[in-house]
Amino acid sequence: VVVDVGDDAAAVQMAGSDKLLLFTCDMLVEGTHFRRGWSGFSGEKLGWKALAVNVSDIAAMGGRPTYALISLALPGGIEMEFVDEVYSGLLRCAGEYGVIIAGGDSVGSPQGVVIDVSLLGEVEKGRLVQRKGARAGDLIAVTGSLGAAGAGLHILESQIPLIAGGEDLIAALLEPRPRLAEGRALAESGLVSAMMDLSDGLADDLPRLCQESEVGARIFAKKIPVHPACRELFDGGLEHALCGGEDYELLFTFVPESLPKIASALKKAGAQPPIVIGEILPPDGGLQILLPDGSKSPLPEGFKHFSS
Amino acid sequence: VVVDVGDDAAAVQMAGSDKLLLFTCDMLVEGTHFRRGWSGFSGEKLGWKALAVNVSDIAAMGGRPTYALISLALPGGIEMEFVDEVYSGLLRCAGEYGVIIAGGDSVGSPQGVVIDVSLLGEVEKGRLVQRKGARAGDLIAVTGSLGAAGAGLHILESQIPLIAGGEDLIAALLEPRPRLAEGRALAESGLVSAMMDLSDGLADDLPRLCQESEVGARIFAKKIPVHPACRELFDGGLEHALCGGEDYELLFTFVPESLPKIASALKKAGAQPPIVIGEILPPDGGLQILLPDGSKSPLPEGFKHFSS
Repeated sequence: VVVDVGDDAAAVQMAGSDKLLLFTCDMLVEGTHFRRGWSGFSGEKLGWKALAVNVSDIAAMGGRPTYALISLALPGGIEMEFVDEVYSGLLRCAGEYGVIIAGGDSVGSPQGVVIDVSLLGEVEKGRLVQRKGARAGDLIAVTGSLGAAGAGLHILESQIPLIAGGEDLIAALLEPRPRLAEGRALAESGLVSAMMDLSDGLADDLPRLCQESEVGARIFAKKIPVHPACRELFDGGLEHALCGGEDYELLFTFVPESLPKIASALKKAGAQPPIVIGEILPPDGGLQILLPDGSKSPLPEGFKHFSS
Repeated sequence: VVVDVGDDAAAVQMAGSDKLLLFTCDMLVEGTHFRRGWSGFSGEKLGWKALAVNVSDIAAMGGRPTYALISLALPGGIEMEFVDEVYSGLLRCAGEYGVIIAGGDSVGSPQGVVIDVSLLGEVEKGRLVQRKGARAGDLIAVTGSLGAAGAGLHILESQIPLIAGGEDLIAALLEPRPRLAEGRALAESGLVSAMMDLSDGLADDLPRLCQESEVGARIFAKKIPVHPACRELFDGGLEHALCGGEDYELLFTFVPESLPKIASALKKAGAQPPIVIGEILPPDGGLQILLPDGSKSPLPEGFKHFSS
């Protein structure tokens, strides 16, 4: 094993191959990660998301997803239509990201729905990007706006009346779009020193990248690309952008001189330019955020999934 | 994909390799597959079993397991000791069968414990054995005794007082021993026409092998190797041997002339001789069992997991 527990996916050396095999799995549990009663929720979206979050793990390593297996636990009495919807969402996501669903199994569940997707992928040996590798002086960037999914979750869970713009936030939560083209372009550029996907929120995930890289970091609140609807509806939206999670944008680092080449690599891939949000500090620099009022603060703890 | 949904594992062609990659996953759900309150149950045994049932899938394809990923869903308030036990059982099973645990993740669960293991494996291209391939005239054999796990489940679920011999039956359920050496020896012999593992019971699983192979089958009740304690405690034990499931013995077929060579291959692997229980019929032969009184009966439906 090249990369073990603690990165987005495991990477395994295959005898006789110039590629590494990537291997990841993520489980979505009803009542922890979703509720069937949510406004806008469907089996189709659950299927999409269950595969999409795994594709994001592969993208975060610079890889390309290949084959998936599905484990589904279903309460007795669930409509077959729901199961068909789940598979239709899985297949739509598989089609979009070039994944082959190689098998699946369903078992009974005494309570809610559980879906676990295992996904294989591959990456050229020299192109693997890990959480470790960031160095003091590197810039920290993300691939897109943050906070939408967390704001969408807040709307669904607090059952506040649906406000204009709220639908986009809920859609971001229910149907995340993993940054596969971006991850590939960044890996192929050879210029990225560390990368991961933002599944738990910047405030939780950046410390993980820093821990694996053995560095500190400083981010600038003003530079964080808060999703417009999140900003408008939630008083600037910084809390959701930092702590909300499930945005599935990529977080990555590189030396400042590489910025133009990285921008050009992303452009070629049809993606947004990198959004620089901060810089990597030496190990003793700690983890800090510069707030809009100019004050410094340690990075807040990300909130956990609502059930915990 | 060489083998798709419907076999024990998926088999994938890897560019530049003379081996096929095997890929399987199985989910165990509290209340469907186990109860934490069962006599003899422990987190350690749950960990063992969660990996063991996947190793059995790889064994059934003639392969060798390699890397595993673990997804664990845990109710709030569960003791960390339980989680440590689960990992200790996973590691014990991994050590026994040569598996490397390459990663794992745990999430919250509003109700019971769920564990899903994804397992990779490999098999030389010429050695893959599938459910399809059995031909009329082939003998049908199993690697060991049947009915113990089903009888153990019956004892635990009916809460009948624990009788002498019952511990062995419960142990068979809680700590199955996948037939990896047997699967490898059978695959390497090159003499096996079809193979699968007995996870749902002969009455459910043999029809699957026959369906994939497009053949019929006849088995002889008298030849079924009912586990001694199951036979003694459950009136001959045939019902558990046919319908109980979770024995994780291998079911396989071969031409009659190969019997001595197959016996010798298994002996070399330190395993029991093959136990012949019947024969493959032409497609129009149906699925039948010859009962001890000489009468013929269609194969009974296997019972489903107790919760369904």
